[in-house]
Amino acid sequence: MTLAAQDARLIIAASEQDSNLYYATRFLAPDPFIYLQDHRAKLLLMSDLELDRAKAQATVDAVFAYSDYEAKARAESGAVPTLIQTLSVLLRERQLTRLLVPADFPLGHADGLRQAGFQVEARPNPYFPERLVKQQDEIDAITAAQRATETAVDEAVRLIAASRIKDDLLYAPANGGGPTGTSNAPLTSERIKQVINLKLMELGYVAQHTIVACGRQACDPHNEGSGPLRANQPIILDVFPRSSSTRYFADMTRTIVRGRASDGQKRLYDLVRQGQELAFGRIKAGADGQSIHEAIVSLFEKAGCPSGLIDGRMQGYFHGTGHGVGLDIHEAPRISRSGSRLEAGHVVTVEPGLYYPEVGAVRLEDLVIVTETGCINLTQYPKVLEV
Amino acid sequence: MTLAAQDARLIIAASEQDSNLYYATRFLAPDPFIYLQDHRAKLLLMSDLELDRAKAQATVDAVFAYSDYEAKARAESGAVPTLIQTLSVLLRERQLTRLLVPADFPLGHADGLRQAGFQVEARPNPYFPERLVKQQDEIDAITAAQRATETAVDEAVRLIAASRIKDDLLYAPANGGGPTGTSNAPLTSERIKQVINLKLMELGYVAQHTIVACGRQACDPHNEGSGPLRANQPIILDVFPRSSSTRYFADMTRTIVRGRASDGQKRLYDLVRQGQELAFGRIKAGADGQSIHEAIVSLFEKAGCPSGLIDGRMQGYFHGTGHGVGLDIHEAPRISRSGSRLEAGHVVTVEPGLYYPEVGAVRLEDLVIVTETGCINLTQYPKVLEV
Repeated sequence: MTLAAQDARLIIAASEQDSNLYYATRFLAPDPFIYLQDHRAKLLLMSDLELDRAKAQATVDAVFAYSDYEAKARAESGAVPTLIQTLSVLLRERQLTRLLVPADFPLGHADGLRQAGFQVEARPNPYFPERLVKQQDEIDAITAAQRATETAVDEAVRLIAASRIKDDLLYAPANGGGPTGTSNAPLTSERIKQVINLKLMELGYVAQHTIVACGRQACDPHNEGSGPLRANQPIILDVFPRSSSTRYFADMTRTIVRGRASDGQKRLYDLVRQGQELAFGRIKAGADGQSIHEAIVSLFEKAGCPSGLIDGRMQGYFHGTGHGVGLDIHEAPRISRSGSRLEAGHVVTVEPGLYYPEVGAVRLEDLVIVTETGCINLTQYPKVLEV
Repeated sequence: MTLAAQDARLIIAASEQDSNLYYATRFLAPDPFIYLQDHRAKLLLMSDLELDRAKAQATVDAVFAYSDYEAKARAESGAVPTLIQTLSVLLRERQLTRLLVPADFPLGHADGLRQAGFQVEARPNPYFPERLVKQQDEIDAITAAQRATETAVDEAVRLIAASRIKDDLLYAPANGGGPTGTSNAPLTSERIKQVINLKLMELGYVAQHTIVACGRQACDPHNEGSGPLRANQPIILDVFPRSSSTRYFADMTRTIVRGRASDGQKRLYDLVRQGQELAFGRIKAGADGQSIHEAIVSLFEKAGCPSGLIDGRMQGYFHGTGHGVGLDIHEAPRISRSGSRLEAGHVVTVEPGLYYPEVGAVRLEDLVIVTETGCINLTQYPKVLEV
C-alpha cells in the first residue's frame, strides 16, 4: 500500500497479543506501544522501560521516547496529558491527518483521536495482506515447528501404543509413566497432554490447549479431554504449539485407537482420509476454499455421513476444512463455508473430521503450502489408526 | 452497573485473549464469539463448533446458535449476512439500542454497528470494576500460582547455588544439568529458564518470557537473558506463570549472585529491600499508588541513587513499583507515576529495582493483597543475595 503524505498506518497494541504489530516490528513486548508508519518512515513511540530494547531489536526506522512527547504535550496543556494528547503531538509534527488502523483497533483510542480532529479508518482484514504469503524464513520457522510437533506427538503415541489394556482402560508400561505417572494408575488425557507439552517446551515451543480426547469427549471438537483413556475407542490428538523464538505456529491432528477399532470407526477414518486427499488434489493457487470445503461435505454425505443438528446436537462434519497458520494459529485464508481464494505461499491446514457419538470421532490434520500447481505437505507424521 | 431497558454490555472477542470476556463467561475459546448482557439476561451467540461446549461450561443464562440468527438475517436480506447484520437481528429482537463496550472493542465492529443505527459507547477501564477486587476463590488461585512459582524458582536457585565456578563462568554440578545440560558446558540463561518453565508446566502452569538475566543484560528490565551466566554478578529471575486451569497469574522476582557480590551490589540490594518495606508499610485500603511510588524514588535518590537518562541510557529506577495481577498479568491498579487508589481485595506486585550498568541490577518482587489495615504478603520465598 502506498501512503499519501497525510496518511499513516497506526497500531496501538501489545505485540505479545497482536501479531500484526509483531509482524511490523519483530519486537515483542507485553504492554501496549505505538507503531506509526507514514510515507517517510516506520516509527515507534516507546515507554522508557522498553526504549533501549526496542532500539536494539525493532525493525523500524526510529524509536522515539514516549516521555519526550508526553513532555511536549504537557508543555502545551499544562496538565498530565493523555495517551491521545501525547500521540497527537507526534501526528501534528508529521502533518498526518488520516489514520489507517486495523479492524481490531481499540474503539476507545479511535474515538479519542476522532475527537482530537483526526480521521480514523478501520482497514479490512488482513491489515498486512503480505502476511498471508509466507517467505522462505517463515516457511522454515513453520516447518521447524511442525517437526517439533511430530516429535512430541510421536512420544505420546508410543506411550499409548506400549500401554497395557485391562478392563478397557490403558496402563502405562513399567518405567513409562514418567515423573508423575505410575504404572498402577490408568493413563489419562492429562498425562498424555503433559508428555506432549513438556517435550515441546524442551524443544523451545509453548503448546496450550493441546487436545487428547477419547470416546464421546472427542465428539466435541474443542473438548481438550480429561480422565482415563479407553481401549478400542478413538483418541484424537490435536497439537498446535508456538515457537518461543520465531513466534510461528504449527498444527497437526492424529486419531488413534489403542486396541481394535470398530468397523464403523475404520470407515470414518477412511472417509476422513479421502476428504484430505480430495483437498490435497484441489488446493493450488487460484483455487476457491469454499468449493473445496463443500466438496468434502458432499463426499461425506454421499458416503452416508450427513452433517448438522441430529438428535439435538451437532454431528457429522461441522467445522471448517482449513485455516491459515503463521504468527496466529487461526489466520486467513479459510477453506470453509466462508472460504477464500488461495494463493501461492499460503500455509493452510487440511483437517476434515467426522463426529458421531454412537460411532466415534475422527479428525486428521496436515499443514500444506499452496503452490502455483498444487500443494506441498509439510507434515511427515504417518496416519495409522490402530496402535 | 444497572442496565436500562435499551442498554446492553457487548463484547466480541476470543476469551483466550480477552480476560474481560473470560471473567464474564468462564468459557475459554480460541476464536471470537459474542457476549451480550441486558437488563434481563446474559447471553452468548456461539458458532456451531462451540455450541455444546458453551452450553455445558459458560456461566451465562442462555447460549444461542449464531447460525440461527444468521439464517434470520439471510431471510431478511437475501444475501450471506455479515456478523453485524446477524448480531443486529438479536439486538432488534431484544429492543437494544445503546451498546456499552470495552475500551478495546474492535473499531471495525463499532463502526459497523453505528452505521446500522446503534449507539456504541466505549466504557472506561476497568470494564468490570469488580474484577479488581479479588474474591476468595480468586485469591486461592493466585496463591496456588505463587506457590508453584516459588517451587520452580527454588529449583533454579538450587541449581545455580550448586554450580561450580571456573574462570568466572558457572558449570552445572555432575548429574545436575538435566536432559539437555551437561556438566561440561557453562550454565546458561536458556538452561535455567528451561528448568523453571518445565517445572511449572509439570505443575499445570504456562510460563512465558521468564527472565533469567545476568550482568549488563539485567540492567534492561525486560531483557529475558541469554548465554552463559557469570559468577559474582547479579542474576535477576523474574517468573510470572499462568494456571492452565484457573487462568490466574502469579508474579515473583529474585536477584541472586553466585559467588561474591560487590559492596556496590550489596548496597543496591539493601536499598531495594528498603523500598519494598516502605511500600509494605504504606499499602492499605485508601492509599494512593502514586505517592507510594514517589516515596520509593525519593528514598533511592536520597541514598545517592538517581534515576533517569544518564550517559544516554535509562538508569536508576525507571519502571513502576507495582501492578494488579489476576486474569491479566498487568491489570489495574497501578503503584506508579500514574498510580491509582488502592482498595481492599486488590492483589498487587511490589517490585522496586535499581539498574546501573557500572554496578549491577537488582529487582525484588513480591505479591500482596491489600486489606483495610495494611497488606498480606502472598510470597513466602526468602530473599538471599549470595548463593
